[in-house]
Amino acid sequence: MTDVYVGSGLLERLPSILRSKRRRATLVTDSALAGTLGRRLAAAFRKAGWEAPLFVLPRGETAKSLASVARLWDFLLKTGHERRDPVVALGGGTVGDAAGFAAATWMRGVPLVQVPTTLLAQADSCLGGKTAVNLPGAKNAVGAFHQPDAAVADVGTLKTLPERDYRSGLAEVVKYGLVLDAAFARELDRRWGLLERRESAALSWAVGRSLRLKAGIVAEDERDFSGRRELLNFGHTLGHALESASDYRVRHGEAVAFGMRAAVLLSGPLKEAALIERLLDRLPFPSLAGIRGKALFRLLARDKKARGGVPVFVLLQGLARPLRTQTVDERQVLAVLAALGVKP
Amino acid sequence: MTDVYVGSGLLERLPSILRSKRRRATLVTDSALAGTLGRRLAAAFRKAGWEAPLFVLPRGETAKSLASVARLWDFLLKTGHERRDPVVALGGGTVGDAAGFAAATWMRGVPLVQVPTTLLAQADSCLGGKTAVNLPGAKNAVGAFHQPDAAVADVGTLKTLPERDYRSGLAEVVKYGLVLDAAFARELDRRWGLLERRESAALSWAVGRSLRLKAGIVAEDERDFSGRRELLNFGHTLGHALESASDYRVRHGEAVAFGMRAAVLLSGPLKEAALIERLLDRLPFPSLAGIRGKALFRLLARDKKARGGVPVFVLLQGLARPLRTQTVDERQVLAVLAALGVKP
Repeated sequence: MTDVYVGSGLLERLPSILRSKRRRATLVTDSALAGTLGRRLAAAFRKAGWEAPLFVLPRGETAKSLASVARLWDFLLKTGHERRDPVVALGGGTVGDAAGFAAATWMRGVPLVQVPTTLLAQADSCLGGKTAVNLPGAKNAVGAFHQPDAAVADVGTLKTLPERDYRSGLAEVVKYGLVLDAAFARELDRRWGLLERRESAALSWAVGRSLRLKAGIVAEDERDFSGRRELLNFGHTLGHALESASDYRVRHGEAVAFGMRAAVLLSGPLKEAALIERLLDRLPFPSLAGIRGKALFRLLARDKKARGGVPVFVLLQGLARPLRTQTVDERQVLAVLAALGVKP
Repeated sequence: MTDVYVGSGLLERLPSILRSKRRRATLVTDSALAGTLGRRLAAAFRKAGWEAPLFVLPRGETAKSLASVARLWDFLLKTGHERRDPVVALGGGTVGDAAGFAAATWMRGVPLVQVPTTLLAQADSCLGGKTAVNLPGAKNAVGAFHQPDAAVADVGTLKTLPERDYRSGLAEVVKYGLVLDAAFARELDRRWGLLERRESAALSWAVGRSLRLKAGIVAEDERDFSGRRELLNFGHTLGHALESASDYRVRHGEAVAFGMRAAVLLSGPLKEAALIERLLDRLPFPSLAGIRGKALFRLLARDKKARGGVPVFVLLQGLARPLRTQTVDERQVLAVLAALGVKP
């Protein structure tokens, strides 16, 4: 079980949240955050009397290369990171994935504390234990399931997030409403203005509710095997393909928003269509320059979840009524992609 | 739970043991076995109608480098290894560790089948889920717990094992008797001649009993955290240090035999000393050329199990009555090492 903390001003309180007789941790962040949030977090640990060396990953997907993680393993070796010392991952999903994979594999697994600083990571990726690195041409091909001991989402860190990253993160929040919780979806619709202004209480509410929904699903299907957890892949089958086809110029949340639109179209007529479309229309729409429908479809067959080369889609039978299916065929997908402006 | 099979002629029967609709697996072995057992196993899968590409690791510890595992990951990517396809590891502990780590991390974990071909791997390392690779200067520093779906020990493969490897492997068999099962220890003493001649029924019995004892402990403490599984480290604290100090010229089993002798001396007077010493005297004694006591002790403090730099020892209070302790100090260790012929 992961202890989850959501609120403002949690960064400075992290050492007291963690507790530890040994007062020894390795902090991991990226070069975009090292001088700002990284410095603040390191100071908080120093002030609390911890020995907490800081390792800085490169920013962006480069953090998730095998070479980056190998340097982090060397750092853990040289600084004497022992089996019960936590790795504290401060940053967005890339830091969480790379530092998480290092924690999952260092001495066959040491404690992990996720301190997400993007909306995407706070509302979604900090929980669930998925960690990964990329191989050339294969995102997240290598990884491990490693549940964090704690996830600490300080919504204060979202105030300075670039607008594009912030809006991209809203896609995962909307996903939780559409797939799992009709009341949450309706409330998101009502409080959208507060969320756009990044109001603290609204952020804590939206992040906290998303994480509660995720924790419920993860508890039922920790290893992503029963199909239950696959429901969270709503919008992700096509989303992953679009990210890949765009060489990751399209942000994850933007791609998921696009994938959710496509999934809704593939789902056929829905009773709550108006609310669903209104929420999706508020999410950013990615640039489709250079994207071809046939190429997208080929990528679908190579998805991790594909079985025998046939992709798995999550569709909706209604608001918060998801359906896992392998029956969608190439013609349907190409028609929907065309309707969304993708060239054949 | 791992399904365990021990006996003769199992290699050819592996495809029918595994069962699978998809009939798709990746076989992994090393360059020492590729042309012999590797070829036999690949033929068995081909004959059964499986698609089973074979990947060949370098022999020895090089198999456990990050570079070797990275090449294996690339192979899994290029051959289209999917989430439910098993990785079959054919070989000794190094193949099991490296292929096991690749299976543990490929797509965050795919099924693993251990087909151990050395006595060490058959009686000990094929069960328990420990997988690992080495960093320069840090053996097994990076790894994962990944329980195999099946462990298939064909004792026929032991007939051609080099004598030094075979005798080294007997150390782990003796360990199970000394630490966990007095009747097994007495029976090993009686059947030693059969074991030395590698008689099939005696081998199946000794391997099977060792694995049953190990499975019992692993079930109680899968992640090696409660202390229960640490009992299996009898002889290993000093053993690991000796392997490392000798630059791995001393074989694992030889080092463990040496570590068990040291642990028995550190344990003080024991009632069943005659039987214990007779068993230990039958095991190979490693070359101690160039080994210094102080250097060994320094390595102990860097052991994965060390807490706050203090090594954990497993001693005996009697036959099959192990005791975990952190109270052994440097002077005692150096005295015992001197008694065993190590220079200070």
